[in-house]
Amino acid sequence: MERVEIKLRENPYDILIGPGLLNNLDNLIEDNTEQNFIITDENVHSLYADYLKPLTNYDTIVIPPGEESKSIDMATNILKTLLKKGTSRKSQIIAFGGGVVGDLAGFCSSIYMRGISFVQVPTTLLAQVDSSVGGKTGVNLMDYKNSVGAFYQPKRVIIDTKVLHTLPYRQVLSGIGEIIKYGIIYDYDFFQYVIKHIDQIKCCNPDIMSYVIKTCCEIKAKIVAQDEKENGLRKILNFGHTIGHGLEGITGFSKYTHGEAVIIGMYYETFLAKKLGLINKNYSKEIMDFIEDIGLDLNIDDYPISQLTNWMLKDKKNVKGKISFIFPIAEGRVEEHFLTKDELIDINLK
Amino acid sequence: MERVEIKLRENPYDILIGPGLLNNLDNLIEDNTEQNFIITDENVHSLYADYLKPLTNYDTIVIPPGEESKSIDMATNILKTLLKKGTSRKSQIIAFGGGVVGDLAGFCSSIYMRGISFVQVPTTLLAQVDSSVGGKTGVNLMDYKNSVGAFYQPKRVIIDTKVLHTLPYRQVLSGIGEIIKYGIIYDYDFFQYVIKHIDQIKCCNPDIMSYVIKTCCEIKAKIVAQDEKENGLRKILNFGHTIGHGLEGITGFSKYTHGEAVIIGMYYETFLAKKLGLINKNYSKEIMDFIEDIGLDLNIDDYPISQLTNWMLKDKKNVKGKISFIFPIAEGRVEEHFLTKDELIDINLK
Repeated sequence: MERVEIKLRENPYDILIGPGLLNNLDNLIEDNTEQNFIITDENVHSLYADYLKPLTNYDTIVIPPGEESKSIDMATNILKTLLKKGTSRKSQIIAFGGGVVGDLAGFCSSIYMRGISFVQVPTTLLAQVDSSVGGKTGVNLMDYKNSVGAFYQPKRVIIDTKVLHTLPYRQVLSGIGEIIKYGIIYDYDFFQYVIKHIDQIKCCNPDIMSYVIKTCCEIKAKIVAQDEKENGLRKILNFGHTIGHGLEGITGFSKYTHGEAVIIGMYYETFLAKKLGLINKNYSKEIMDFIEDIGLDLNIDDYPISQLTNWMLKDKKNVKGKISFIFPIAEGRVEEHFLTKDELIDINLK
Repeated sequence: MERVEIKLRENPYDILIGPGLLNNLDNLIEDNTEQNFIITDENVHSLYADYLKPLTNYDTIVIPPGEESKSIDMATNILKTLLKKGTSRKSQIIAFGGGVVGDLAGFCSSIYMRGISFVQVPTTLLAQVDSSVGGKTGVNLMDYKNSVGAFYQPKRVIIDTKVLHTLPYRQVLSGIGEIIKYGIIYDYDFFQYVIKHIDQIKCCNPDIMSYVIKTCCEIKAKIVAQDEKENGLRKILNFGHTIGHGLEGITGFSKYTHGEAVIIGMYYETFLAKKLGLINKNYSKEIMDFIEDIGLDLNIDDYPISQLTNWMLKDKKNVKGKISFIFPIAEGRVEEHFLTKDELIDINLK
């Protein structure tokens, strides 16, 4: 079992990573005698309900799978259930599922009685490498992703790498998007490792995955430790996300998984950086060639650039109507630049 | 002008107290060029809208007055308005009103894009002495007061003591409840000061009020600094609130103001402490005589003790079905005790 310590000043916690940890949940989660809850979705519940049985004092709330569940209404329903069942300030929530479950359950934990304890058990590769560190929780409102939420740290994160074998390939690919991102934004050697081992990563080789997940968590932890509330450095984590969020929005959050959108986003943001002369040609070619080889359809001709830009304008990171981009500029280094809608249209993505 | 520094490790801020500060809002509030918002209620807006005019870059959201506005629905409506108007992470909210406005606007600020800047301008005595320190924000859900919320600190608190003259007397009395509480829980000398100056406090004498508000903020700041998230010492602030919340609940949050309920709560909690032998008779007599002289109807015979207790059982501070009470035990000292419903019924409040 690997262990990553997240050394935050206020709420330090640890991430446990290894195959088969689900068999041992009751030992890895601190006991208490309150009314506690597991929040999970129908898919995860149907696969893994048996692993939850040793957890006494826990009731289970099962939500429908999918992004639609990340809503204020769903959060309100969960909060009402917690109240009705006598959940106290000393109770604990376990978020057992992918990113939607983690974001929603984390947000509910952060605002129920002004904050109760929660443990994350992420069951998708994306959630394991992305949501385990950083304390971002939230729901969507209107068309705005994660526009309502809180920075709220879990008590512990438990990552069972065995669950990856039940993931559909598109879900694995979605996680791979974020994995590539960590290499490009912070650690060129890790980027090289990912390029070299991409086939083993695609089929979730257990040894490789423990190392990859641990490294991603460590990189993110280093970034977040320097900027817990996303005022500065942490923005680099948004590489690929400006265009990625735009693509998710313009396709109604249904065509692409988040990670697929991020992969395509990284491709076109690297392309933009090249057009703007911010990155040397060899390095941009290395990134773009690697992404092309992954096997995802990178064609975005169906989406008019003006409409895509309108979606990007909804992003929280924008300042005064200028769109924030994180561009790769050198090996393991990225930089924030702002573009107006007009500038972006003039550069032309295609 | 008085100034109290709230020295929190993460989010220090200051409280400015003085007559006429509303005339100077644009100088006391940091400028920015984002789309900002003032959240206020119809009553406050009709009295003080003119003072807001110098604040450029601010739109105003006016909510209906009263506890009903402290709901998830109202918060959601506000969040939607912020999104529609392009409010960014660098925007600022001014909470301009009493406790309802402060709690609601603070909560919205805490979860909008995972937290944006907010400034409190409390316009009731209760909000000035109670909500200025502690960072408690929140809304009600079902019958549970403040059951959904966050600990979230303002950037600054601006207290104009002149606004107190437009308050109905019951609103002043409501603030006096909390003022008395600070003396009893932490500072016997201040309790004596309040007893001696109660008539000037009742008519909001400006010099006395600046001192009283400053002292209350300082006492609360000392308590909160030791326990920002209400895990220990901070509980003493709940003196009077266990029975007080019960009375508010059983009367549908309409008969008593919060402070009136707290005053009656302090009376009967002192009475309970006496019955349990936790406080000496002279001191309990001093507290109870003083409260009797304030002129509030202390009779609670209309409320069956079992029903009152059921309301108390809804409180966040309870642990495993036992009701948390803060009892005065000596001059400037209180202590937490837990009672079951049956124990409380057997002691008999009346």
